[in-house]
Amino acid sequence: MPVISLPDAEWSERVGALAGVEVVHWDMTCPAPRAGELELVVPPYLGAREHLRDLRDLPRLRLVQLLTAGYDDALPHIGPGVQLANAAGVHDASTAELAVGLTLAAERGLPEFVAAQERSHWLPTTIRGSLADKKVLVLGYGSIGHAVARRMAPFEVSLTAVASRARAGDELVPSVHGVHELPDLLPQQDVVVVIVPLTDATTGLVDDAFLAAMKPGALLVNVARGKVVDTDALVAALYAGRVRAALDVTDPEPLPGDHPLWRAPGALISPHVGGATDAFAPRAARLLREQLSAFVGGRPPLNVVHTG
Amino acid sequence: MPVISLPDAEWSERVGALAGVEVVHWDMTCPAPRAGELELVVPPYLGAREHLRDLRDLPRLRLVQLLTAGYDDALPHIGPGVQLANAAGVHDASTAELAVGLTLAAERGLPEFVAAQERSHWLPTTIRGSLADKKVLVLGYGSIGHAVARRMAPFEVSLTAVASRARAGDELVPSVHGVHELPDLLPQQDVVVVIVPLTDATTGLVDDAFLAAMKPGALLVNVARGKVVDTDALVAALYAGRVRAALDVTDPEPLPGDHPLWRAPGALISPHVGGATDAFAPRAARLLREQLSAFVGGRPPLNVVHTG
Repeated sequence: MPVISLPDAEWSERVGALAGVEVVHWDMTCPAPRAGELELVVPPYLGAREHLRDLRDLPRLRLVQLLTAGYDDALPHIGPGVQLANAAGVHDASTAELAVGLTLAAERGLPEFVAAQERSHWLPTTIRGSLADKKVLVLGYGSIGHAVARRMAPFEVSLTAVASRARAGDELVPSVHGVHELPDLLPQQDVVVVIVPLTDATTGLVDDAFLAAMKPGALLVNVARGKVVDTDALVAALYAGRVRAALDVTDPEPLPGDHPLWRAPGALISPHVGGATDAFAPRAARLLREQLSAFVGGRPPLNVVHTG
Repeated sequence: MPVISLPDAEWSERVGALAGVEVVHWDMTCPAPRAGELELVVPPYLGAREHLRDLRDLPRLRLVQLLTAGYDDALPHIGPGVQLANAAGVHDASTAELAVGLTLAAERGLPEFVAAQERSHWLPTTIRGSLADKKVLVLGYGSIGHAVARRMAPFEVSLTAVASRARAGDELVPSVHGVHELPDLLPQQDVVVVIVPLTDATTGLVDDAFLAAMKPGALLVNVARGKVVDTDALVAALYAGRVRAALDVTDPEPLPGDHPLWRAPGALISPHVGGATDAFAPRAARLLREQLSAFVGGRPPLNVVHTG
């Protein structure tokens, strides 16, 4: 019977009974149990990064099922013939709602209200910004990007979707633009939500030129990866008051206490909490059940993002 | 030609040219121009409260068109034969997006992130709450309540709508419950968004019994009027850790610096900013054009909420 690993007993319980496989628990902080037999590994959701190299030492490994949507950390450790699957779909709800939450917080001035509340101070009434009537560009139109757009749509915004290549639209946007169209699109947008995977092509995608092309005062929302943004360029643009930013991810991460991004004008920072919510476990368990059922049934794995 | 008043020249410009009426500007801080002739008055959006009594001194007044959705302030000053119209619809987008913004901020922990950012501190990764999978009750299912529900729907929540009387549902909810069903409904809800008009029946609606019926740890969101909530009861429930609250309105308002609500655990307070955004002016101008066109054309006024 094939041997597979789940991170711990809690995950076994979430996934439920599985016929046709033997399940061991491996949180990757110690040597793998049954290392010679493991065929499928599910690394733990948090804190696995530094242990992924141990995947190299499993001679019968065929499939690594991540619990994250991002998979850049795992790529260097996927040996020949091993398939890597990500948790596409699992983090859609949680990450997309954070993207909208950060956008609303920034557009409506919630950080200012929180600071005023700490001083027990009722701010005077003035006309403030809203999300309604704004032009929102979603950069990265995969599963999470679509979930962002679906949540943005009822807010009376004008939506534009951009992906690596142009393609036909869907029920939310008339067409999906290609990334090469950004220079023409950016100057019109009030909000730009970045949710691209981190690849060679997207590293530093939001650079000086990108930020300079944005409408003055527009909001950059990054719920992708910190390295998609050139941090020095963003810091300069923020301190110059050219743009605003709401960031769930930064480069570096964690952001050191003396980093200028913390106190940059118009910056709102959450500590990479996009996927880490209680929406995650039930969706992840559903994916694992489907993936393990495919594995036992000899069907091709779901969500394969790379083959070693 | 009938004489009507708009608050100022800026409103005249927003509304545009009007045939068949003479427009004067009256922000209500000084005596009414052409007081003997004014037939329709549009009081200013902000700061009109203390001047509404001047509406009593206009012998030919037929219609008062407020720029607010709430109209409790104006009711005592509407003389015999005068109609009062509110700005139903105008504040839907702005108020509904704030309701969702406050909900997301509270559910995802944004106030904690803002406080940590002020200390340049990256919080450790833990599994936090989300809005997805939560049960959300919208209390008050008029125009804004529906706008709240429409924005909540894509967040993978389970929606329940409650109005003064039970009625058939719509595309968002299978049925609208009557307010008498609250004791049965409240214990299941994770989030309760209050957006009822302030009337005798809704004053103090959220009292000790209401709060005690809520699920432990549930979130109360008030974007209606402060007096819908019994503030003492809410303060007690917050300090006891029984519920959480996100409040755009309070009683009293502004909230004095020494009020215990400011520092109550689990409270997020915004200073009555629901409608006061840049989404307001274009929608208000559209309503005024329709209302004035009906007035000139001798058609019944829109949005009448009271006849004196």
